[in-house]
Amino acid sequence: MGVREEKMVSAGYGNRLGLAPPPATASRHATAVDRWLARRLLEAVGEAPVAMELWDGTEVTLPGRRPEYRVRVLDRRALWSLLLDPEVNFGDLFSAGRIQLEGDLVSFIETAYTALERAGGGPLGRPGRLLGGRRRRNTLRGSRDNIHHHYDIGNDFYALWLDSAHMQYTCAYFPDPALSLEAAQEAKLHHVCRKLQLRPGETVVEAGCGWGGLARFMARHYGVTVRAYNISEEQVKYARERARAEGLEGQVEYVLDDYRNIEGTYDVFVSVGMLEHVGPEHYRGLGDVIARSMRPDGRGLIHTIGRRSPAPMNGWIERRIFPGAHPPSLAEMMEIFEPQGFAVQDVENLRLHYALTLRHWLDRFEAHVGEVREMFDEAFVRAWRLYLAGSIAAFRTSQLQLFQVLFTGPERHDLPWSRAHLYREGTAA
Amino acid sequence: MGVREEKMVSAGYGNRLGLAPPPATASRHATAVDRWLARRLLEAVGEAPVAMELWDGTEVTLPGRRPEYRVRVLDRRALWSLLLDPEVNFGDLFSAGRIQLEGDLVSFIETAYTALERAGGGPLGRPGRLLGGRRRRNTLRGSRDNIHHHYDIGNDFYALWLDSAHMQYTCAYFPDPALSLEAAQEAKLHHVCRKLQLRPGETVVEAGCGWGGLARFMARHYGVTVRAYNISEEQVKYARERARAEGLEGQVEYVLDDYRNIEGTYDVFVSVGMLEHVGPEHYRGLGDVIARSMRPDGRGLIHTIGRRSPAPMNGWIERRIFPGAHPPSLAEMMEIFEPQGFAVQDVENLRLHYALTLRHWLDRFEAHVGEVREMFDEAFVRAWRLYLAGSIAAFRTSQLQLFQVLFTGPERHDLPWSRAHLYREGTAA
Repeated sequence: MGVREEKMVSAGYGNRLGLAPPPATASRHATAVDRWLARRLLEAVGEAPVAMELWDGTEVTLPGRRPEYRVRVLDRRALWSLLLDPEVNFGDLFSAGRIQLEGDLVSFIETAYTALERAGGGPLGRPGRLLGGRRRRNTLRGSRDNIHHHYDIGNDFYALWLDSAHMQYTCAYFPDPALSLEAAQEAKLHHVCRKLQLRPGETVVEAGCGWGGLARFMARHYGVTVRAYNISEEQVKYARERARAEGLEGQVEYVLDDYRNIEGTYDVFVSVGMLEHVGPEHYRGLGDVIARSMRPDGRGLIHTIGRRSPAPMNGWIERRIFPGAHPPSLAEMMEIFEPQGFAVQDVENLRLHYALTLRHWLDRFEAHVGEVREMFDEAFVRAWRLYLAGSIAAFRTSQLQLFQVLFTGPERHDLPWSRAHLYREGTAA
Repeated sequence: MGVREEKMVSAGYGNRLGLAPPPATASRHATAVDRWLARRLLEAVGEAPVAMELWDGTEVTLPGRRPEYRVRVLDRRALWSLLLDPEVNFGDLFSAGRIQLEGDLVSFIETAYTALERAGGGPLGRPGRLLGGRRRRNTLRGSRDNIHHHYDIGNDFYALWLDSAHMQYTCAYFPDPALSLEAAQEAKLHHVCRKLQLRPGETVVEAGCGWGGLARFMARHYGVTVRAYNISEEQVKYARERARAEGLEGQVEYVLDDYRNIEGTYDVFVSVGMLEHVGPEHYRGLGDVIARSMRPDGRGLIHTIGRRSPAPMNGWIERRIFPGAHPPSLAEMMEIFEPQGFAVQDVENLRLHYALTLRHWLDRFEAHVGEVREMFDEAFVRAWRLYLAGSIAAFRTSQLQLFQVLFTGPERHDLPWSRAHLYREGTAA
């Protein structure tokens, strides 16, 4: 095959990504060195059945492999960048269209992850990132910038592909995998509320509330009063409007502020999808915040993306999608609970639920891809496609976990005798 | 009140405990210094409503307290020993009858734990033991001695108060607290098997199998083949006899050996009530054992007494009852799983279930106390009464936890969509 022409979008999101423009003269012939480098790259993904096609049509495969995927590298500089820092540069080059894939993107990444895992490149086998890029800091100001980068790019964009009722940008719960996304997000909200055993009249503080869906749901269906913190201006604006429209202003208050500034004392602490943005160096401080804001006989729940073992976030995701993000291992998370003497009551791992949630999101994203391209540009579309597809693959292959951790204050002794109450009604299978 | 005469049993178990004999002349008058020391002891348990009665009838209370419990100290040396190392010496003096209690033993200890917790003496507030006694080592030989000390004191003794069908010396599962001990132990066995999703024909390795009840239960009810390791000679003898009598020899093999010597590869790894005896310095090694004996797509479950935060075992329990024991925090436990890349799927905390289990054991123990005294002596009776009562109090007040941790190998991707299967049939409420 020859070189393909593709519309190169270097304006807009491509610029925001800081992408180098594609080189002016891309179509020189591939040399023996180029082919040798391509083979080294293929060897790095171990057993994965991948072929590489270089800019002049040269095909590189490893002996004995039957390629199911074809990675097209459209210029020499792309090949060299890939060697320098494959984790970050694959994403950037893919976004810029300088690397293209023939074959299903999700299963390609799954295959690569599985091959890397078997070759010992699992969570503990990637020292590269530890030496390389530094995670963006989550100081009060750093967090504001990091959150703004992702969550303030437009409520209209997120509304295209999240569930309409609750705008949940976190893992849904599919007790039956055939559930719709809407039903599964509602099941997740019930699951969280039931774990917390909310009772009418109780007070809840929420750290990192997204578009405010959980807070409104708790108030409406469980009769509690919620104060919810978030530092994304766009999200808080949306959340307040919805609460007003739904007549929940008296029960739900959205505060545009950092979790570190939480004030007051509550029966319940809850945080769904914020811990990824906190950073392990702040877990002890988060524990302090919980200890002073949750009654000694209170309950808490943290829902977060996690890891089997401590490892940094995928470098490209951390740089381009979620600056400052770090999904913790359970041992890392315990730094929130153990110094405070909180008792962990229940940990549930829902990683396959996140893979399925993301599949719904990706399908809806693709169904609206024209609108997304209008809002941003082609580089944005390609970057988000890679982010969503790569995340499906990461959860399916166990590179990422999803933990719900239920805990209680040191003086809570009123505990249910079993978890059967989570599975009795409606939402659970 | 004057000094009470009580039959002092200094032979038998009293000697094994290494108890000092009661002093020959115990009944001198309490001095101002004695009374001052007694007040310091009462202050140490903070708000607990306790009075102390000294050997000459002197009563010591703190101002403003309405005593609900009366601790009688029968000689001056007992008072001084209590000050030197209250954690260890209270147990020894209580066992020797040199300290006696008026009031319910369980609720007395609960009150003391609660007062200590509020005074900041929770799991993290007890540096004494960290500086003081050293935990007995769990080398291959040390473990043999430590296990022999507790588990080889006589199958007949344990049969007096454990459930008869399965001889379970670990936390039962009471989805309904009104269940009998027998029903709750059977519910526990099912709960463990269901979490592991055992299928007929699969292979299981068990580390630390007690009297072999779980292994036989798995073979009989779930159709699996089990190899079960244990270093207690008495227990293995009993387990083999029962398996033979029940015709399960072809399915269950009991191996008198240390978990570190496990051989072979299995679908499932399970360990109920052994981790307390392993010691955190050996957790990484235990993870290695599991990694080499469990298939990469296998499942495992560890059931263990635990802590909210890292803390040594109660000093008296570690010295007199369970040498070498250490109940881990979850962060400590993660040292088993995370370096191997195992994925934690489910953690359940059953601490109130252990309090209830122990209440059944204590009631049965007291119902057979005459037989126990015949087998051992009064000091043994008093020591075990304190151990069982103190454990009830520790679980009720959250000084101790009970964790069941379900985990999977890095290549396990066939996971249930919810935990509803644990709550569908028979045993669960």
